[in-house]
Amino acid sequence: MKKKAVVLLSGGLDSATVLAIALDQGYEPITLCFDYGQRHRVELERSRALSRKMGALEHKEIQIDLRQFGGSALTDDIAVPKGRSEGEMTQEIPVTYVPARNTVFLSLALAAAEAANAQDIFIGVNAIDYSGYPDCRPEYIQAFEQMANLATKAGVEGTSKFKIHTPLIEMTKAEIIKKGLELGVDYSLTHSCYHPDADGHPCGQCDSCLLRKKGFQEVGVEDPLVYQNQT
Amino acid sequence: MKKKAVVLLSGGLDSATVLAIALDQGYEPITLCFDYGQRHRVELERSRALSRKMGALEHKEIQIDLRQFGGSALTDDIAVPKGRSEGEMTQEIPVTYVPARNTVFLSLALAAAEAANAQDIFIGVNAIDYSGYPDCRPEYIQAFEQMANLATKAGVEGTSKFKIHTPLIEMTKAEIIKKGLELGVDYSLTHSCYHPDADGHPCGQCDSCLLRKKGFQEVGVEDPLVYQNQT
Repeated sequence: MKKKAVVLLSGGLDSATVLAIALDQGYEPITLCFDYGQRHRVELERSRALSRKMGALEHKEIQIDLRQFGGSALTDDIAVPKGRSEGEMTQEIPVTYVPARNTVFLSLALAAAEAANAQDIFIGVNAIDYSGYPDCRPEYIQAFEQMANLATKAGVEGTSKFKIHTPLIEMTKAEIIKKGLELGVDYSLTHSCYHPDADGHPCGQCDSCLLRKKGFQEVGVEDPLVYQNQT
Repeated sequence: MKKKAVVLLSGGLDSATVLAIALDQGYEPITLCFDYGQRHRVELERSRALSRKMGALEHKEIQIDLRQFGGSALTDDIAVPKGRSEGEMTQEIPVTYVPARNTVFLSLALAAAEAANAQDIFIGVNAIDYSGYPDCRPEYIQAFEQMANLATKAGVEGTSKFKIHTPLIEMTKAEIIKKGLELGVDYSLTHSCYHPDADGHPCGQCDSCLLRKKGFQEVGVEDPLVYQNQT
């Protein structure tokens, strides 16, 4: 029998690749996405579409309103920076940082895993192209795993151990794309932009678009997404 | 200027006492309660009422649907055990356990704290009368704190350190009640029962009611709550 795993699937390029890796490793994925008051709903649609198309066992969409905490350009009306160089991106923690986001998401993934009798959680964090987010670093993931094994029934009873899988953590964007293409990921279904237009077309200029474009350039493959103002 | 703190306030006896302790220590509390699909809504009302009456700075009610994960008598329609001895209560992890509940709640408290520029989080966990919940133990709280300081902007920049305060962790129920009475907590506003009737009156027989009643008996003070079938 296949082992179940909970896969955090935002609908972005990274998490789609993670889902492909979990499937390739023989897991039966339960995909999880969060409606956390993000300004752009296209993410949620892409997550659902990817889960279905790639053959996950089940898809769960969790509503959790992080907007009432404030403090991020992804949920508030703070301007998203555009056209920054990579030096500028990594210099400081960006305004797009959502307070404790990965901690909240991993905690809910842990609840889902515990309820489904799964011990494996996959998350597409990345310490290379991570744009300065503190909760994408290996030492953070390790600390979360340790906490998770003290938090839960299974941990206490010693019957199983939770494992947080971060297959992308040491990969560059180009390596991620290459891996995903090998595994047949349809990147036209993914969404990366912090600032899409009303039809969901990416801006091509925010940090996330710039990293994505550079990744495809390095692999020498065309990004299947249609950018704003593209003819 | 007073320091802000985030206080998890379920509306129960323990968390009301924790709020009194945080106020007594000079903090300005932001109280947080969770609408997580619990079968009994009286908790949410009591939390709001306690926050207002005790003079918290702000009250936040977070909606988060844990029901879709299943697995607990507090959110599902599993029978809540009644009339158990204390030996039976501590023997095993009870069916009232909600998957990863404290982890989910502490993560959201961390998000609230980070957004409000607070470094202090208060939670009423208890390792003595804890009825077998794994996420009430000191080693779990310590692991969460460590993870929190790796997860956040403040932790990375080294500008501040999160502290999870667990003032009740080593106290018996009687000691908690005594402390609360000293600090003027109005326990008639609190709610403990897993199985209240339609008017919110406690059953007097579930684990939570039994621990509460025993605590008041030991202190030699009458519980201000009116129990079901009481004349």
